[in-house]
Amino acid sequence: MKLRSIGVIHSPHTKAAGTPVQASLAAGIEGTVEVFPQFAPGLKDIEGFERIWLVYWFDRAKELQLVVIPYLDTSSHGLFATRAPCRPNPIGMSAVRLLEVRGNLLRVDGLDVLDHTPLLDIKPYIPSFDAFPAQRTDWFDNAKSISMKADDRFEAEKGR
Amino acid sequence: MKLRSIGVIHSPHTKAAGTPVQASLAAGIEGTVEVFPQFAPGLKDIEGFERIWLVYWFDRAKELQLVVIPYLDTSSHGLFATRAPCRPNPIGMSAVRLLEVRGNLLRVDGLDVLDHTPLLDIKPYIPSFDAFPAQRTDWFDNAKSISMKADDRFEAEKGR
Repeated sequence: MKLRSIGVIHSPHTKAAGTPVQASLAAGIEGTVEVFPQFAPGLKDIEGFERIWLVYWFDRAKELQLVVIPYLDTSSHGLFATRAPCRPNPIGMSAVRLLEVRGNLLRVDGLDVLDHTPLLDIKPYIPSFDAFPAQRTDWFDNAKSISMKADDRFEAEKGR
Repeated sequence: MKLRSIGVIHSPHTKAAGTPVQASLAAGIEGTVEVFPQFAPGLKDIEGFERIWLVYWFDRAKELQLVVIPYLDTSSHGLFATRAPCRPNPIGMSAVRLLEVRGNLLRVDGLDVLDHTPLLDIKPYIPSFDAFPAQRTDWFDNAKSISMKADDRFEAEKGR
């Protein structure tokens, strides 16, 4: 199971500290998703979708930690009950708004991703597949008042 | 960027043909997500989430095709405007309902995944991060009447 980068995400965020922790908290933050030219034929018809999933590699995440204190809480939780980047497979996903397609460049809004992050995949956001009114969200239910920005707790000096 | 399997998804689907194409179309189909014991500490508190994202490897997907006719349509589209498995990085994601946690085993409902699929990650489903009422979904808007089951068009004999 080996990955290859299919593009690069260009965003205004150069370090974790201060970056919104989720795309839904990053409205107004625009950036550009560059898809390498050899993959550009796969973008046909994507402009018809209001939102897209960006799937990417957390290349600056710290080593695996199975129990973490997430950005949005003050107590510890199992990693898989959080979206922290220090995962066994540091794969991130963000549902961003697609503003414009120009050739192999996608202008998007709602970027919670660090600049130069390697892009792994793009999928269309389809509400009947992706949008659910889940009622129970454990610790997150009571954590919403905490800062919605990241800090450097999961950022490595070297990266992965 | 190398991946490691963190578990295995056990489902009733042994081949692509007849498998629901998305988790939201697979209600009533239960299965078990086995997380390897060394990663089990990461499951702490996950039982408090109604839904979880399963991130997995499409191990039986055909080679990359940049333009495809998706299961749910009769005309061709760019791969990144579809959820077809023959991707540059064959990573799948499904939002399934979490029914029960017993140690390192998660019983889930809504499985659109083949039996023995390698598990890469689990993330909590959090509506404010993941659920959006996107209005425009291009070809999918008009494709909903077609069969919601997969066939063998993207299934390889050897796998990836």
